[in-house]
Amino acid sequence: MSKTLIQRIVRNKTFIRTTSIMIITCSILLGIEASFTKEILFFVILDTAFTIYFSIEVILRIFAEERPWEFFKLFSLKKQISPKTGKKRTQIVFHEHGFWNCFDFVITAFSIFSLVVHIFEHPEFLVVGRLFRVLRILRLLEISNELKEVERKIVSIVPTVFSFALLLGVLLYIYSIIGIYLFSHHKYENADFSSLGASFLSLFQVMTLEGWVEMMYQASSHYEDSWWIKGYFISFVILTVIVSFNVFVAVLTSQVQEKINAKQVIEEKELFREMNDTLKEMRSKMLTEIEGLRNEIQKLRSEIQNNKP
Amino acid sequence: MSKTLIQRIVRNKTFIRTTSIMIITCSILLGIEASFTKEILFFVILDTAFTIYFSIEVILRIFAEERPWEFFKLFSLKKQISPKTGKKRTQIVFHEHGFWNCFDFVITAFSIFSLVVHIFEHPEFLVVGRLFRVLRILRLLEISNELKEVERKIVSIVPTVFSFALLLGVLLYIYSIIGIYLFSHHKYENADFSSLGASFLSLFQVMTLEGWVEMMYQASSHYEDSWWIKGYFISFVILTVIVSFNVFVAVLTSQVQEKINAKQVIEEKELFREMNDTLKEMRSKMLTEIEGLRNEIQKLRSEIQNNKP
Amino acid sequence: MSKTLIQRIVRNKTFIRTTSIMIITCSILLGIEASFTKEILFFVILDTAFTIYFSIEVILRIFAEERPWEFFKLFSLKKQISPKTGKKRTQIVFHEHGFWNCFDFVITAFSIFSLVVHIFEHPEFLVVGRLFRVLRILRLLEISNELKEVERKIVSIVPTVFSFALLLGVLLYIYSIIGIYLFSHHKYENADFSSLGASFLSLFQVMTLEGWVEMMYQASSHYEDSWWIKGYFISFVILTVIVSFNVFVAVLTSQVQEKINAKQVIEEKELFREMNDTLKEMRSKMLTEIEGLRNEIQKLRSEIQNNKP
Amino acid sequence: MSKTLIQRIVRNKTFIRTTSIMIITCSILLGIEASFTKEILFFVILDTAFTIYFSIEVILRIFAEERPWEFFKLFSLKKQISPKTGKKRTQIVFHEHGFWNCFDFVITAFSIFSLVVHIFEHPEFLVVGRLFRVLRILRLLEISNELKEVERKIVSIVPTVFSFALLLGVLLYIYSIIGIYLFSHHKYENADFSSLGASFLSLFQVMTLEGWVEMMYQASSHYEDSWWIKGYFISFVILTVIVSFNVFVAVLTSQVQEKINAKQVIEEKELFREMNDTLKEMRSKMLTEIEGLRNEIQKLRSEIQNNKP
Repeated sequence: MSKTLIQRIVRNKTFIRTTSIMIITCSILLGIEASFTKEILFFVILDTAFTIYFSIEVILRIFAEERPWEFFKLFSLKKQISPKTGKKRTQIVFHEHGFWNCFDFVITAFSIFSLVVHIFEHPEFLVVGRLFRVLRILRLLEISNELKEVERKIVSIVPTVFSFALLLGVLLYIYSIIGIYLFSHHKYENADFSSLGASFLSLFQVMTLEGWVEMMYQASSHYEDSWWIKGYFISFVILTVIVSFNVFVAVLTSQVQEKINAKQVIEEKELFREMNDTLKEMRSKMLTEIEGLRNEIQKLRSEIQNNKP
Repeated sequence: MSKTLIQRIVRNKTFIRTTSIMIITCSILLGIEASFTKEILFFVILDTAFTIYFSIEVILRIFAEERPWEFFKLFSLKKQISPKTGKKRTQIVFHEHGFWNCFDFVITAFSIFSLVVHIFEHPEFLVVGRLFRVLRILRLLEISNELKEVERKIVSIVPTVFSFALLLGVLLYIYSIIGIYLFSHHKYENADFSSLGASFLSLFQVMTLEGWVEMMYQASSHYEDSWWIKGYFISFVILTVIVSFNVFVAVLTSQVQEKINAKQVIEEKELFREMNDTLKEMRSKMLTEIEGLRNEIQKLRSEIQNNKP
Repeated sequence: MSKTLIQRIVRNKTFIRTTSIMIITCSILLGIEASFTKEILFFVILDTAFTIYFSIEVILRIFAEERPWEFFKLFSLKKQISPKTGKKRTQIVFHEHGFWNCFDFVITAFSIFSLVVHIFEHPEFLVVGRLFRVLRILRLLEISNELKEVERKIVSIVPTVFSFALLLGVLLYIYSIIGIYLFSHHKYENADFSSLGASFLSLFQVMTLEGWVEMMYQASSHYEDSWWIKGYFISFVILTVIVSFNVFVAVLTSQVQEKINAKQVIEEKELFREMNDTLKEMRSKMLTEIEGLRNEIQKLRSEIQNNKP
Repeated sequence: MSKTLIQRIVRNKTFIRTTSIMIITCSILLGIEASFTKEILFFVILDTAFTIYFSIEVILRIFAEERPWEFFKLFSLKKQISPKTGKKRTQIVFHEHGFWNCFDFVITAFSIFSLVVHIFEHPEFLVVGRLFRVLRILRLLEISNELKEVERKIVSIVPTVFSFALLLGVLLYIYSIIGIYLFSHHKYENADFSSLGASFLSLFQVMTLEGWVEMMYQASSHYEDSWWIKGYFISFVILTVIVSFNVFVAVLTSQVQEKINAKQVIEEKELFREMNDTLKEMRSKMLTEIEGLRNEIQKLRSEIQNNKP
C-alpha cells in the first residue's frame, strides 16, 4: 500500500466521521456493558471489533506521516532571539497534534493489552484490563472542536494551577506533621492522625470542609485546654481557603493579562504603524513638493541671470 | 378589528403596565394557592380569568405583527462577507424578541391545557397541569429591563458553560463505569454503584462534596488494600473541583476578552480615524498652499519673461 | 455657641481621633458586657456615658453644617446633557457623606431609645434595646479609609448582585411551589414542604448543599418511581450553582469593563488630544511659514514691477 | 576569613544547589521521622547535622553582606515627588530579599532553640521544639522561582484580602454579640453561645456552611416563634457569602486594573512618544526646507537688486 493512498484514506472526510461515530458508539456500549453483572459474549465480540478498528486506524495514521516517528513528536526546540535583550533563547514548542497522537496510541495499546488479557483469561488482571478499556471513552474529547478549544484553555493555565497545588501541598505536608505531633499518633473516630498518609487524608477532608467541625471536636475532646487544637483546625481552614481563592485570582489575572498584551497591543501597534506610514508618505510628498518649488525658483534665478544684460 | 387598532392597543403603555401587574399578581396568587391543602373555588375562577387574559394578550400580540408567523421567528440567516478572508459566510442571527414571544406562547398554551385538564377533571393529569400553571411565574423574568440585561449576559456565556458541562459529563461517565467495575455492582448504604444511573448519581453527590468522606469510607471498608478506592474518590474530587474552577476562568477571560475587543478597539479605531482625517485634511491644505506658491512663482516668471526686452 | 466655633470643634483632628477611639472602646466594651450573664451597674453607667458622647457628637456635626437639614441629604438631582444624543437627562447623584451622616444619626437615635427603655425598665423591650445598642459597632466601618474604599467597591456592585438575587429568588419561588405540589404538603424529617415558607427554607438549605442528599432520599423514599423527585433536586442544585456562578462572572465583567472604559479610554483620549494639539500647532506654524514665503515672493514681484523701466 | 571569600562561597552555584537539596532532604526526613512513634537516635543525629549546616549557611550569608545589619533590612523609605500634585511623598519600599533573609534567620534560630531544648531534655517544651523544627519545611517555598512568583502575586493582594477579613470580622463580632443576647448564653449540642469566643467559633462554623442547618434547628427548637432565629442564621449565611464573594471581585478588579494601567498604558505612551518624535522631526525638517526656500528667494531678490542698474 503506497504512502499517498494511506494519506488519502486518513484525510478522507468519511473516514474521519466514521471514526468519530465509532468512538461515540464504543463509549455508549461500554456504559451499557457496565450495567450487566455477567459477561455477555456479544459485548466481547463487539469489543474485539472496536479494538481491531481503532488499531488499524492508529496504524494507518502512523504510516500516513512522512516519517512515521514524527507521529509521536510531542516537543520540538525552537531557537528564538529575544527582541528585548538580543540574547538567543531555546524555547520548547509543544505539539498539540503530537499529544493527541500519543494519547490515541497509548489508549489503543492498552485496549489491545486488555483484550489479550481477557482472551487468555488472567482473572487477576481482569479489572485492570477493564479499566484500560474504559479509557477509550477519553477519545470523546477529540471529537468536538469546541471541546478541544476548552481543553486548550485548560492546558494553558495548568502551570499556574500546578504552582498553587505545590503551595497547597507544602501547607498540607507541614500541617500533617504538626498534626501527628499534636495528637501524638492518635486515631479518633473521624480524624486519623496515626501516620503521615492518614494525616494527609484527614487534612484533605478538612480542606473540603466536609465534617471538619466534628473532627475538630473529637480531636479537642481529650485535651483540657483545647484552644491550641481549635486554632490548628481553624488556621488550616482559613489558609487553604485563602490559597484556593488565590488560585483563581492569579490564574485569571495572568490569563487576562496575557491575552490583552497579546491581542490588543498587536492591534494597537498595527494602527500606529498605519498612521506612521501615512505620516511618512505625507513627509516625502511634501518634501518632493518643496523640492519642486526650489527647482522653480532655481529656474527663475537662472533665467534672470541669463536675462542679465 | 383592523390591524392598526390592534397595534395601537398592544403598544399602549397602560396595556403593557396592566399585563406586568397581571403577571405579578398571578405569580403571588399561585404562591398563596399552593399554601392551601384543599382546592378552593375562588382560585379556580381567578385562574380561569388569568388564563383568558393572557390568551387574549398573546393573540393580540400575534395579530399586531405585520405577518403573524413572524411572531415566532427565532432565528434568521444573514449573509456576511468576512473582512479578513473576503469569503461569504452565512451567520445565524438570534432574535431575542422572537424567543420571548415563543416563550409566552408556549406558557399560555400550557396554561389553557392545564385549565382544560382541570375543568374536565382528569385527576391523573392534575399534578402535571398544576406544574404547567406554575411556569407562568417565569413571565416575571420579562418585566424588568435590568433582569433582561442580566439574562442576556447569562445567555451569552451559555456556550462556554455547556462545553465545560460536557467535559464534566465525560469525566462523570468514565468514573461511573470505573466505579461499577471497582465496586463490582455493590450498593453501600450511602454510595450506590449497582447500575450506571445510580453510579452517576453517587458521583454527582461526591461532586457537591456532600458526605463524600462517609461514602469513601463505606466503599473502602470491604477491601484490605483500600488505597485504590481512596485514590479513586480523591482524584475525582480534585479533578471535578479543578474543572469547575476552570469554568469560571475560561468563561471570564473569553467574556472579558470579547467585550474589550468589541468596545475598546472600536473606540480606539474611531480616535485613529479622526486623527487620520486631520492628517489628510492637513496634507491637502498644505499641498493647495504649496500649489498657490508655485502659481505665484509661475506668474512672476511669466511676468519677467514678458518683461524681457 | 456660634457656628464657626462648632465647625472648628468638628473639624478638629483631636476631636475626630477621640471619636474614633470612643467607637473602638465602645465596641470592645459591648463584647465584654455580652460575656457577663448578669447585668452590671458599671456597664450601664459606661453605656450612658457613651450614648451621651455620641449624641453630642452627632448634634455638633448637624449644627456644623451651613444648613442643618443638608446633614441628611442622601441624593441630589443633577441635570446632564448626554454627549451622544444631546438630550437632557436628570441623573441621581448619591451623596456618600450624607449616607454616613444618616447612618450615624439612626444608630445614635436607637442608642438613646435603648437607653431610655433600659432605664425605665420595660423588660419586654430589653432584648430589642440591646440589639439596637450592638448596632453601634457598625460605626467601626467608618474609621479606616481602606475599609471605606472596600465598602465603596461593594456598594458599586450591589445593583448587579441585586438583579441576580432576584433571579435566584424567582427560581426558588417556582421550585417552592412545584415542591409543595410534588410532595403534596408533606413534612419529612429534614425536608419540610408543608407551607410556602417552609418550602422556601428547605430549598435554601439545598442551595447551600448542606444535607441535600439526605433530603432527596427522604423525599423520594415514599415514591415508587423516584426519578421525578431526584430530577427535581438535581436540576435545582445545578441551576442555582450555575446562577450563583454567573453572579461572579457578570459582576466581574461589568465591573472590569466599566473601570477600563472609564479610566483607560480617558487616558487614551488625553494622549490623542495632545497629539491633535501638536498637529494643529504644526499646521498653523507651516501655514504661517508658507504665508511668509508668499509675502517674500509678493515683495519680489512688486520690486521687479517697480524695477520695470 | 575575608569578606570576598565568603561572598564567593555564598554566590557559588554548587553551594546554592547543595542548600536546596539539603532543604528538600530535611523536609522529607521530617516526614519520615513523624511516622515513627518512638524517638530514634539516627534522626536526632541527622537533625543536629541539618541544624548545624543551616546555621552556618545563614551566618555565611549574613557576613557576605557589605554591612551585616543590611541582611535584615525589611523596609526602606523612598522619597518620591508625585507627578500629579507635585507634593513630596515618603513611600515605604518593601525589600523582598530582606523578608526571606529574616524568614531564614528566624527559622534557623528556632531550629537551634529546639535542638537545645531536645538535648537538655525539657519534656515540657518537646512538642513546641518539634513544631519549630517542622517550620524548616517552609524553606521549600524559597527553592523554585515559579513558586516565588506565585508567592509574590499572593503577597500583592494581601492588603485587599486583609480589608475584607476585617469586614468579615466586624460582621462576625456583631452577630456573636447578638447571638449571645438572642440565645441568652445558652449552649446547645452543636451551637455554643455561652461566651463571646464560643459564639465566634459557632458562627465561623456557620460560615463554612458545615452543619449550619442542624445548628439553626437546635437553636430555634426552644422558641415558639422561631422566625427571628431563622432570620438570624439565614441573614448571616447570605451576608458572609456575599462578602466572601466580593473578596474575589474586589481583589480581581483592582488587580487586573493595576496591571492594565501599569503595563498597557506604558506601552501606549511609548507608541505615542514615538509618533510625537516622528511629527517633531517632520516639523523641523519641513521648517528647515521652507527656510531654505526663503533663503533662495532672498538670494534671488538680492541678485535682482544688485542687477538693478
